[in-house]
Amino acid sequence: MMRADAPLGVFDSGLGGLTVVRALRAALPNERIVYLGDTARVPYGTKGSNTVVKYALSCARYLVGENVKALVIACNTVSAVAPERLRVELDVPVLGVVEPGARAALAATKTGRIGVLATAGTIGSLAYPRAVAQMSTRAEVVGQAAPLLVPLAEEGWVEGEVPRLVVRRYLEPLACAGVDVVVLGCTHYPILRPLIESEVHARVGHHVAVVDSAHATANDVRSFLLARELANPRPCSTDSVRLIVTDLPRTFREVASRFLGDDVGEVEQVDL
Amino acid sequence: MMRADAPLGVFDSGLGGLTVVRALRAALPNERIVYLGDTARVPYGTKGSNTVVKYALSCARYLVGENVKALVIACNTVSAVAPERLRVELDVPVLGVVEPGARAALAATKTGRIGVLATAGTIGSLAYPRAVAQMSTRAEVVGQAAPLLVPLAEEGWVEGEVPRLVVRRYLEPLACAGVDVVVLGCTHYPILRPLIESEVHARVGHHVAVVDSAHATANDVRSFLLARELANPRPCSTDSVRLIVTDLPRTFREVASRFLGDDVGEVEQVDL
Repeated sequence: MMRADAPLGVFDSGLGGLTVVRALRAALPNERIVYLGDTARVPYGTKGSNTVVKYALSCARYLVGENVKALVIACNTVSAVAPERLRVELDVPVLGVVEPGARAALAATKTGRIGVLATAGTIGSLAYPRAVAQMSTRAEVVGQAAPLLVPLAEEGWVEGEVPRLVVRRYLEPLACAGVDVVVLGCTHYPILRPLIESEVHARVGHHVAVVDSAHATANDVRSFLLARELANPRPCSTDSVRLIVTDLPRTFREVASRFLGDDVGEVEQVDL
Repeated sequence: MMRADAPLGVFDSGLGGLTVVRALRAALPNERIVYLGDTARVPYGTKGSNTVVKYALSCARYLVGENVKALVIACNTVSAVAPERLRVELDVPVLGVVEPGARAALAATKTGRIGVLATAGTIGSLAYPRAVAQMSTRAEVVGQAAPLLVPLAEEGWVEGEVPRLVVRRYLEPLACAGVDVVVLGCTHYPILRPLIESEVHARVGHHVAVVDSAHATANDVRSFLLARELANPRPCSTDSVRLIVTDLPRTFREVASRFLGDDVGEVEQVDL
């Protein structure tokens, strides 16, 4: 039996999932969060689906061992290839980011032509076209793998000529296809959002919307907890976010402090 | 007791070590080689030393199980942080790439100011300054971490504006320091060599030498085998290189065929 005062478990390959944590804290201020970043094996998006499933299972099992009341997969690559397997193997509700992202894209498109920037793993899985097709028969997804954006975000090269040229190259096929929405189909990409947005407006079209799945995911998690009476009715005490990584906790702490906007306390390290 | 007709074991985080395999085949045409690329956990260079040691041990143990007569660490990050540990734990000779690279740099420098481009892990370990100091008291190493070069090489973005600007940015501090040699301190970097070389000549100096450790390492391995009477006296049969990876064997095969210059046969996959 899950308890409403248990924490939410959130995991990602690295630091990208913090974009989802930020949205969860805004939508669900009463909740405690245990975040696991698999920094020893980042990136996931360039790897094969069997490998990603194996890594995702080890992350998820660790969080289940921490008695979380639900698991949020804050990683598009894992959400694209692993959620069914996690649901079969684990006795805890599992929520991903692909469905909320697809829903946000459908809400934003007028023409039905949706562009998705994501990792090679996510694009290859066809998870976005499948999710969109389940919600609408009048929309079409144009996917573009963008493998260099994760290393750029992880290195903090988020402005200047290099990321600009990289983003421009990845946007070209989406501009040719005439999309009117660009989905940031990887939770790392919002770290590059100002640059991506300005390039989308300059190169794809000034009317083109950029959407990410963080807010849509947080709203889904909120609805889910309310429906199951699993939302924490009382404000949580201090230290509402616990951060755990598989490598380099100090580096992660610096980035996380900057990213979540306040001091994040110690970052723990575990060996999976 | 090692046998001369046993294969050499070579390992790297991904495909970069193939630059060492190419040099080994030229220097030691009689030898069979078993190559292991840990593509499920690539890159190593952005990760902490304990994590790299753990991964290196699992790769090395796998190759020892394949009855190799010696282990060649075709990865600067592993050579920088793990060789002593491998020598303690394993009952097989272990040769790295940092010492040969340092020796090649010393042979090429006139001013004694040596620049090293490498991963954050290699630079942080101070392995190059230490290796150079053991060989000469009159040389100085200026290290520059270049974390985006591995993802660029793995993605095959080896020419054009993006890698050029990335390389230019990493070379700036070496140009300011007035080095007369630039060491490619990561076995992935020779894949970008034409571009790096042209930028070094344009930005650091037209007289500045670019050296990599592949040939120096192959010569060291050759001397080692001859001294121990472990060199294979007879030409090996066909299929002199066996390739094993931990993820995405098909992708690896395409790159390896292009890289080693002929058909490489099937690429095996193992789970470490």
